Amino acid sequence: MDHVTKEAFLQRYAFLAVHVGVGLKPGQRLVIRTPLDAAPLVRHITAAAYQAGAPYVNVMWSDPEVAKARFLNAPEDSFEEVPYGNAAALEGMALRGDAFIAITGEDPEALKEADPARVSRSRSALSKSLKAWRKLQMSDAVPWSVIAAPSPGWARKVFPGVPDDEAMDALWNAIFQAIRLDQEDPVTAWQAHVDALETRATLLNDNRFDALHFRGEGTDLTVGLAKGHIWKAGASVTKDGQSFVANLPTEEVFTAPHAQRVNGTVRASLPLSTAGHLIRDFSMRFEEGRVVEAHAREGQEVLDRMLDMDEGARRLGEVALVSADSPIRKAAELFYNTLFDENAASHIALGEAYRFSAEGGIEASDEEAAAIGLNTSLIHVDFMIGTAEMDVDGVTADGSRMPVMRSGAFVLGD
Amino acid sequence: MDHVTKEAFLQRYAFLAVHVGVGLKPGQRLVIRTPLDAAPLVRHITAAAYQAGAPYVNVMWSDPEVAKARFLNAPEDSFEEVPYGNAAALEGMALRGDAFIAITGEDPEALKEADPARVSRSRSALSKSLKAWRKLQMSDAVPWSVIAAPSPGWARKVFPGVPDDEAMDALWNAIFQAIRLDQEDPVTAWQAHVDALETRATLLNDNRFDALHFRGEGTDLTVGLAKGHIWKAGASVTKDGQSFVANLPTEEVFTAPHAQRVNGTVRASLPLSTAGHLIRDFSMRFEEGRVVEAHAREGQEVLDRMLDMDEGARRLGEVALVSADSPIRKAAELFYNTLFDENAASHIALGEAYRFSAEGGIEASDEEAAAIGLNTSLIHVDFMIGTAEMDVDGVTADGSRMPVMRSGAFVLGD
Repeated sequence: MDHVTKEAFLQRYAFLAVHVGVGLKPGQRLVIRTPLDAAPLVRHITAAAYQAGAPYVNVMWSDPEVAKARFLNAPEDSFEEVPYGNAAALEGMALRGDAFIAITGEDPEALKEADPARVSRSRSALSKSLKAWRKLQMSDAVPWSVIAAPSPGWARKVFPGVPDDEAMDALWNAIFQAIRLDQEDPVTAWQAHVDALETRATLLNDNRFDALHFRGEGTDLTVGLAKGHIWKAGASVTKDGQSFVANLPTEEVFTAPHAQRVNGTVRASLPLSTAGHLIRDFSMRFEEGRVVEAHAREGQEVLDRMLDMDEGARRLGEVALVSADSPIRKAAELFYNTLFDENAASHIALGEAYRFSAEGGIEASDEEAAAIGLNTSLIHVDFMIGTAEMDVDGVTADGSRMPVMRSGAFVLGD
Repeated sequence: MDHVTKEAFLQRYAFLAVHVGVGLKPGQRLVIRTPLDAAPLVRHITAAAYQAGAPYVNVMWSDPEVAKARFLNAPEDSFEEVPYGNAAALEGMALRGDAFIAITGEDPEALKEADPARVSRSRSALSKSLKAWRKLQMSDAVPWSVIAAPSPGWARKVFPGVPDDEAMDALWNAIFQAIRLDQEDPVTAWQAHVDALETRATLLNDNRFDALHFRGEGTDLTVGLAKGHIWKAGASVTKDGQSFVANLPTEEVFTAPHAQRVNGTVRASLPLSTAGHLIRDFSMRFEEGRVVEAHAREGQEVLDRMLDMDEGARRLGEVALVSADSPIRKAAELFYNTLFDENAASHIALGEAYRFSAEGGIEASDEEAAAIGLNTSLIHVDFMIGTAEMDVDGVTADGSRMPVMRSGAFVLGD
């Protein structure tokens, strides 16, 4: 990709992130949380946000190499430390109505050499400190959007065996394609796409299923749905009526499982990058909502620590359906990055449920949320279970069944 | 420079910054304020700080390109905006006793295309917001050190007409040389250097001069000294007894002028990079401490805006003597960066005085400080006046004169 072409794509990407991703309003400030490697994109987003009338763009940089230096060198009793003032600043900016863009793209195994126990303690402390801010985000109090930019470490993983420059270009291209930047008018293309996803969500909502039944190789899982569950897709809306798209790309329709009503066995269909480590070839068994067994060919310790983070880490907070013909699949076979892989395959998430995924969820106390079936946890980790062979049935309260997906494709309403 | 050699130098640099620069104690947290381009050095400093027992290293990144995008694109009424929570976090970290490393190295003309009025408004707002933290730093309440790392934009300026890679390597080399990393044991070399500078400061303190008289081409300036002024050099010490070196490199002995007793004309001997612009070939005339005339061949508007920042911006806050045979001169003729150029030439600073530069200054109220002659301002901008031809006399209260520098070289006590 020549420099001019790439700059033009980055400019379109930035425009999309600002106007479709967070739907920035004139006068609204923007916060960008990003790794250093995304600097070329961040600069374009900053310019686009100011051009859209933002009074300030606050870029909060992080560096996986600095994090690694910590995990390899810091004193053993220091991993509960969190950056001073960070949580308060994020909460303050959310309360005054700033928009939030998070950029993902780290090497999926950035912390491979680090002790998973240290990483886990640090993530737990950070999650606790960010609880208030995270609650605001997970209840859509503010517009937020997660987008991606390549790093050399990530690009090498997705396109191995070629020089770094080529791998980076190939990954940029895959991302541009996945988020429809190759279309003549990406903003209009996104509007049409969001509408189509919302039609699918409406169809699922109209059917009022009580549970979903997933069947595939290694998977026989019944996922009960939360009381008054709401399927969502495409765009979200803040309480002030601001429309935003929380993930670029997004291909999913999703809702909240009932944290107590998940039973059976599930096999992950793709590797999971979490906490800077890869977990490969893993499966779990659920009893009454709880993971009672979990095995991984690689990354068992990381998986165990994730499940042990708190009680809610063993229960589901999200179930999402994605057709196996998702355009993400055409961009690359495997991204090793949840933002992409979760939009190429049906998935479930361990941990915190989105409060807006059930009627009354946003206003509910923690106890009331639990009664509805909404899970509470410091974590929210998606992992992919969908395959091109998977069948999904919708099961209603009276026990009748309806095909929702067949051989990986969405068929409800066909 | 091959990769291995450079990594070895970076490691020594990081060790020097942590152990000599801020003199980090086990259990003390470190804050690093840095542009993105310094990432390779930052990662080494982070590792060195953790190895020295820091429980946490908080890296606060900034990007001149993001700043530029703001100045070129943001709404006209937005330049008083400051990053949310930043000032409070810096103050909080200083109050709990963290150490602070600041890395300089931006392109000296990073904001060349930006409107100086916008830059000036933004810097004024930022300085106001950081007042409490800056006061803690300028009174040596915390250990702090300013160090440098090249950026391509800076390297191109110092070594023009060669490819970026070569210019970067040449600038790294010049920095390594300037901070004595080429010596067998840099920490011991620094101890000897600091001792020599402190001897020079003692000599000046013993003489109790009332004023200094600078004479050179275009310069005939009498700088009255603050009541009870104290010459400092080399290492500083916090009130808790922690030794640190506020600038790497440092070749100066410095004290506080009397803000009301500066008279005559001074010509800058080197260009000044400030607010992302260059000011070249400039001179000023002082009357009773105040700049009453200032002319620049290039950068007049930036110079005027600096002087108009507040009342104290037209008065001096520092006077510093540097021998013209400083080793910085051997590393490069002109750095376009104050950290280096101020250690290659005698200099004065407009704006805020260091409170520790006069007896009773730290405890003094603003009124008491003014009575001593200590200047107060939102700015503190050093500029170089020393040349290889300059003579400096010390003038005592009874009017007698003593040679302090002759033809740019320190001669007092010879």
